Amino acid sequence: MQIAKVIGTTVATIKHEKLEGRKLLILRPSDETGEVYGKPFVAVDTLDAGVGDLVLTAHGSSGRMTEITAGAPVDAVIMAVIDRLDVQGKATFRKG
Amino acid sequence: MQIAKVIGTTVATIKHEKLEGRKLLILRPSDETGEVYGKPFVAVDTLDAGVGDLVLTAHGSSGRMTEITAGAPVDAVIMAVIDRLDVQGKATFRKG
Amino acid sequence: MQIAKVIGTTVATIKHEKLEGRKLLILRPSDETGEVYGKPFVAVDTLDAGVGDLVLTAHGSSGRMTEITAGAPVDAVIMAVIDRLDVQGKATFRKG
Amino acid sequence: MQIAKVIGTTVATIKHEKLEGRKLLILRPSDETGEVYGKPFVAVDTLDAGVGDLVLTAHGSSGRMTEITAGAPVDAVIMAVIDRLDVQGKATFRKG
Amino acid sequence: MQIAKVIGTTVATIKHEKLEGRKLLILRPSDETGEVYGKPFVAVDTLDAGVGDLVLTAHGSSGRMTEITAGAPVDAVIMAVIDRLDVQGKATFRKG
Repeated sequence: MQIAKVIGTTVATIKHEKLEGRKLLILRPSDETGEVYGKPFVAVDTLDAGVGDLVLTAHGSSGRMTEITAGAPVDAVIMAVIDRLDVQGKATFRKG
Repeated sequence: MQIAKVIGTTVATIKHEKLEGRKLLILRPSDETGEVYGKPFVAVDTLDAGVGDLVLTAHGSSGRMTEITAGAPVDAVIMAVIDRLDVQGKATFRKG
Repeated sequence: MQIAKVIGTTVATIKHEKLEGRKLLILRPSDETGEVYGKPFVAVDTLDAGVGDLVLTAHGSSGRMTEITAGAPVDAVIMAVIDRLDVQGKATFRKG
Repeated sequence: MQIAKVIGTTVATIKHEKLEGRKLLILRPSDETGEVYGKPFVAVDTLDAGVGDLVLTAHGSSGRMTEITAGAPVDAVIMAVIDRLDVQGKATFRKG
Repeated sequence: MQIAKVIGTTVATIKHEKLEGRKLLILRPSDETGEVYGKPFVAVDTLDAGVGDLVLTAHGSSGRMTEITAGAPVDAVIMAVIDRLDVQGKATFRKG
């Protein structure tokens, strides 16, 4: 899974019917301290995550392993909202 | 999903039979402002997208999760046409 | 899908039985003008493509969505031979 | 599979129900000597691996091929704990 | 498929039960001349390949399309041992 930060939202009127009512969020990859890097990607939210949250995303076919994304043309899903990350026994990120 | 911009079209007479009649568009990855970067890729259009549109693409097996691409040797599909992107509550892209 | 150019051929006596009789070609990724970049990869040919052809390749499980590659340990297949690419309405590549 | 080193742990109260009780570890890719490089990722532990262990991870749909991860929205799993790596017949890594 | 060179072996006592008795080899990606580049990865051997062999590897779910890897948490398999590579009609690699 990718550690990623939710940075924004999308609006798309024309979309595949299985995306109707789904929340598609913009994220950027993050390191273990919550610092983002690299280019943005879009994932389906299934956990009511909000902008600013640090989350975990599952990609590829694993992105379809939720009730909300099953059988849909989506390749990334938010499957956990991170409260805390510890590296070598020391907290590197805590949800604010 | 990848944010991407449709930049062109392809013509291919010799192709797998399941691609007959399918529109294969050329895209480049885009950031959250609509600015493209990196190398082009090709995706199947299922939403009548046009050159210049900013879209979302699903990759891998998720690219086959539409009626048009099911069972076909294709690994990328356009599944949404973007109207607007907001980052930190501020519009970074609006469809022209 | 990846735009790619066929640059060569492989010979492999010892291989998985489902590869018997299959043509495994060497390709390099290409941009929208037919100019190659990056490292080579190998894909199964299903369309009688030849060295020098610009083609489209499907990767991952989508590479197994042909009669020739179904159920085989292959992750890339040539599924179209490109005649022409147009970007912004102007031809960037035409088959010679 | 990726050679990777376990560097930390995650805490996530809000997560997909199939992740309940699962241990999600933070890893960094490693070369054949145990030296890490690149950005961290998160994988499900199925082998009681600990921080500091060098392991192998399977990604994508292969990450769901364990009893613990079957059907869950996870795309990476630890499937071996490395005791030793040999390159050209010489040990490059031994578990401490 | 990836052209890759077998550079070493792994020992892992603790592993998923479906890996019991499987040979997990260390490889590095290779170009069309047999010259390696980039970081190592690990693949299951199904063809009795040895250190020094140039091989083809299939990745992702395609890595499970052999009798030896079916249903196992593995995402890369050696599916051919290369005898020869030709680019533009000229041999760039021959097995020694």
